[in-house]
Amino acid sequence: MTITGSTRVYFVIADPIEQVRAPELFNQVFSMYGVDAVVIPMNVKAEDFDSTLKALFRAPNVDGVFLSIPHKPAALSVADRCSKLAKVAGAINAVRRAPDGALEGDLFDGLGFIKALDNARIGYAGKRVLLIGAGGAAAAIAVALAACGTAEIAIFDPAGDKAAQLGARIADAFRTDAHVATSNDPAGYDLVVNASPLGMKQGDPIPFDVARLDAGAAVFDVLMKNQPTPLVRAARARALIAEPGFEMLIQQAPLYLRFFGLDEAAAGIENDASALREMIYP
Amino acid sequence: MTITGSTRVYFVIADPIEQVRAPELFNQVFSMYGVDAVVIPMNVKAEDFDSTLKALFRAPNVDGVFLSIPHKPAALSVADRCSKLAKVAGAINAVRRAPDGALEGDLFDGLGFIKALDNARIGYAGKRVLLIGAGGAAAAIAVALAACGTAEIAIFDPAGDKAAQLGARIADAFRTDAHVATSNDPAGYDLVVNASPLGMKQGDPIPFDVARLDAGAAVFDVLMKNQPTPLVRAARARALIAEPGFEMLIQQAPLYLRFFGLDEAAAGIENDASALREMIYP
Repeated sequence: MTITGSTRVYFVIADPIEQVRAPELFNQVFSMYGVDAVVIPMNVKAEDFDSTLKALFRAPNVDGVFLSIPHKPAALSVADRCSKLAKVAGAINAVRRAPDGALEGDLFDGLGFIKALDNARIGYAGKRVLLIGAGGAAAAIAVALAACGTAEIAIFDPAGDKAAQLGARIADAFRTDAHVATSNDPAGYDLVVNASPLGMKQGDPIPFDVARLDAGAAVFDVLMKNQPTPLVRAARARALIAEPGFEMLIQQAPLYLRFFGLDEAAAGIENDASALREMIYP
Repeated sequence: MTITGSTRVYFVIADPIEQVRAPELFNQVFSMYGVDAVVIPMNVKAEDFDSTLKALFRAPNVDGVFLSIPHKPAALSVADRCSKLAKVAGAINAVRRAPDGALEGDLFDGLGFIKALDNARIGYAGKRVLLIGAGGAAAAIAVALAACGTAEIAIFDPAGDKAAQLGARIADAFRTDAHVATSNDPAGYDLVVNASPLGMKQGDPIPFDVARLDAGAAVFDVLMKNQPTPLVRAARARALIAEPGFEMLIQQAPLYLRFFGLDEAAAGIENDASALREMIYP
């Protein structure tokens, strides 16, 4: 990759910044498919987010911005337009400049999750899902599940308010029975998703009682680090399908690329994501 | 070069942007000396310059900005501090964040010119110099010559006001006899510098009468494109030393690197600039 004055520029904005993977992943993709563009990490504090995002997009050679923690919710009020998924989930993770100059946002975390389910042949249309957590990742996942025809989403979160609000937003926008789960008992669900931070730290309890999972139920643990987590290991010990979070990231890549108009690179990754998997999987 | 979330970020800001060489040159240097940093082109319009420069420096992972046309004079009012050379020349071409958070600017065009003279063994201390042009390049060169002990600088420019103002600023700040040249006659000067655009376009007249150069005089033509220019060719036909502008660019590289605290890379380039010369020289 040689960066010249003609190279198109993308940023990933986050705080902290060190852990972002978008530069490595997308610069590798750009290099593989001959896209003269580069993704650059930009450490932006919450209080500077609005002004910095606008300043970056005033540069005509900047084509897009990836958003990471903590900026995804704030982007909703800076973008001029966004998708229904982003609006209901209350977050944006990608912004582009539309032909009319407006800033358009979308959210691909949840769609990446759906594609990761497809990849693992885990069903969700017409199914009952228990979702552990009601934060940003959970919201993106719940909204994407609802948009893709999941029949019921029960949301369990120790902070009951957040689960209730998320359930109400989804039930309002989609035909899905989205509501608070009064316990984390996984019995009776087709798919149980851990979208909480439980499992990030050593010694965290397993988020629910794996022994109570139905035979034939599937588990998805969105965590990337410390995989396979105790949850994934316990579910697999019961011979259940249990997927770690990596594939969510892999499956998001072509969605971002299409959003930014890089269709050829997107098609390439859809056809063969092995180079990305080699970078992500431990 | 692999860009990760920990990579330090530099920008080159210009309008237009396509012609900037800093990304190629400095990313090559970073790669050669193991500096985990990247230089990115940023196309910024004049009216957005102040706000964008400030926004970029609010990102803690941004360490520096290179400035090119048309932003060098405007940077003087955005920077909190600058060198005497930058102040007298009225332009800044590099900005860094000081430990106290202030933005510090400096101008290396003129010092790069001085080092290019050193490289070509062309003397300037105590000498008489005729400078053709009174624009940004001419100002940077004149100020650096004055700072480095040139005895007399005569400035010739069709727009007489600019030459007079530049001469007055230099005479005020340094012990050099800097003044307007009433003609472009090179007779009597030790060194004649073309810092005007004459020679950029095919069919441009030669900026002064080469036949009138003293025996033993030297010529420096700051132009990079279309080298050797008719001026350089005519002076060489008289067996005079005549240098094209490339080396000014090469010799600036270690100055920028030291300004940004990248001393090891600077020492490497000072020791052996052959990789940079291969990129620049036609």
